[in-house]
Amino acid sequence: MTNPTAVPLYLDCDTGIDDALAVGYLLAHPDANLLGIGSVSGNVSAAVGAVNTLDLLALAGREDIPVASGAHHPLAGEFAGGAPHVHGANGIGGVDLAPAQAETTGETAAEMLVRLARENPGTLHVLAIGPLTNLALALRLDPNLPALVDHVTIMGGAAMVPGNITPVAEANIANDAEAAAAVLAADWDITLVPLDVTMEHVFEEEHRQQLLAAGQPMATALGEMLGYYFGFYESQYGRPCSAMHDPLAAAIAVGGIVPAIAPRVNVQVDATAGPGRGQTVCDLRGRFRGFPDQPGARTRVVLTLAEEFSPHLVGTILGAN
Amino acid sequence: MTNPTAVPLYLDCDTGIDDALAVGYLLAHPDANLLGIGSVSGNVSAAVGAVNTLDLLALAGREDIPVASGAHHPLAGEFAGGAPHVHGANGIGGVDLAPAQAETTGETAAEMLVRLARENPGTLHVLAIGPLTNLALALRLDPNLPALVDHVTIMGGAAMVPGNITPVAEANIANDAEAAAAVLAADWDITLVPLDVTMEHVFEEEHRQQLLAAGQPMATALGEMLGYYFGFYESQYGRPCSAMHDPLAAAIAVGGIVPAIAPRVNVQVDATAGPGRGQTVCDLRGRFRGFPDQPGARTRVVLTLAEEFSPHLVGTILGAN
Repeated sequence: MTNPTAVPLYLDCDTGIDDALAVGYLLAHPDANLLGIGSVSGNVSAAVGAVNTLDLLALAGREDIPVASGAHHPLAGEFAGGAPHVHGANGIGGVDLAPAQAETTGETAAEMLVRLARENPGTLHVLAIGPLTNLALALRLDPNLPALVDHVTIMGGAAMVPGNITPVAEANIANDAEAAAAVLAADWDITLVPLDVTMEHVFEEEHRQQLLAAGQPMATALGEMLGYYFGFYESQYGRPCSAMHDPLAAAIAVGGIVPAIAPRVNVQVDATAGPGRGQTVCDLRGRFRGFPDQPGARTRVVLTLAEEFSPHLVGTILGAN
Repeated sequence: MTNPTAVPLYLDCDTGIDDALAVGYLLAHPDANLLGIGSVSGNVSAAVGAVNTLDLLALAGREDIPVASGAHHPLAGEFAGGAPHVHGANGIGGVDLAPAQAETTGETAAEMLVRLARENPGTLHVLAIGPLTNLALALRLDPNLPALVDHVTIMGGAAMVPGNITPVAEANIANDAEAAAAVLAADWDITLVPLDVTMEHVFEEEHRQQLLAAGQPMATALGEMLGYYFGFYESQYGRPCSAMHDPLAAAIAVGGIVPAIAPRVNVQVDATAGPGRGQTVCDLRGRFRGFPDQPGARTRVVLTLAEEFSPHLVGTILGAN
């Protein structure tokens, strides 16, 4: 059933409304082969994120995809309770999904990631759309992990635009700055999908109505969740619409969306206690020279896309692409 | 001779090619009343900066303006030797100016600033175009200084664009991050003129040729200095031209150039030892809502200008505006 050239994926998420959209996108995309999903505390606790993920998989009839519950606390400090004002108390905008029959596997998310990397040496693609705690723990479990993994795509950071939870920090990175610093410093190829693109490619009410109008259970559930999400983002944009963080990282990971300006540059995560804590410090000083790649840099920072994202997202979820 | 409505100015500078242009601009502008100039280590040492400033004043026949030599070292650490690759070994692109007769006053720059603020209570405008060491020292000398000063204009920082000496830090701020943190936290009205505008309003070879063609001693000297400056900036822009940092701050201080987008927002200077050291962390998260002012914020961050700067700069120096 799976496309033989599909990308073998480990997804790490904190589900979350936009995480739910990413899951919906990946389940619908022919080039995604979800081998396993780990949860992490972020938008919601790791435990709630795992439940939401299992329920979404059940809604799509894909309970065959294993889900592992991951880290509850960041590497330093404690989980602060998530973002119910953005994602709702249950993390998915108050939408009630039918409870899944499947349960989480006994392994931790970090253990699942290491196992999948060993089972798929050189081909596994890691897609992280929550705080990077599980990835950092996996690097501790197996320091050889970067050599086993083909690529890491991360939704996170802010390069030349403001942050979303501090003036310079984006939530996924800031929620576990120590983990992010370790993951961004590891020796693997990373594509970073920051607020520079996820805040610019806005999902509008017309797109939400397209999801709701299709009469498909997953699309309807996602459209309903977005009603809650729009309520938060109206305070940012001044109209009912939203950013679209996690699905964009998913689309870039599987090649559904192609970045336009995306230089390979040095990136350092600020893990100090100062005003820059949680910032992805990206060296973009080459901007007047067409953003040349920096020698030795292994992180691509996506600054612009080659096309609009929201029509592609809707089309993929509805099976029209 | 001075315009009675001119802005009474204390200028703090590290002269420097673009500082020289700022001095040339202010001497030519009818709304600037330079009461005193203090030097600080930055582009060059404070001592060399004072000499360059005195020589420029002599070239303009304005040795009546007092110059005070300021801090050699930043508040923490030591002066690292300046930027001869940008400004030349003598700080003014190797141009030989006739030595001034005048000498520096006996006071320090910080003492001069405090004296001028007390002599002009409520009206003095402080224009700082170098590291903020002298301003921080003046705040220590007289904690009441903010109540005496009308306004502070600072060339420094980077808000939504990369830095120029680290990926996120601009040189004036980073060269004395502790001083900048103190000055930006003090209780006075500040206009911050960051790289967001100074790197965008490029001074081109045609503008330099206009300075050289006028046959005026000051304009000729400045045009020659710019030949050296262009040599450095060619590596940034890919053509012979330059940013125009300090004169733009001078023009905004005296009203010669009016900012367009310039919200009053909270600004914190990163004085940690982390990768964000020297960054001006500006809270610009209101960007999708037209950059509203933040309640209580006293720092305006200039993000765009209402007009092109270089023609105004050339016209003012040549006495044509």
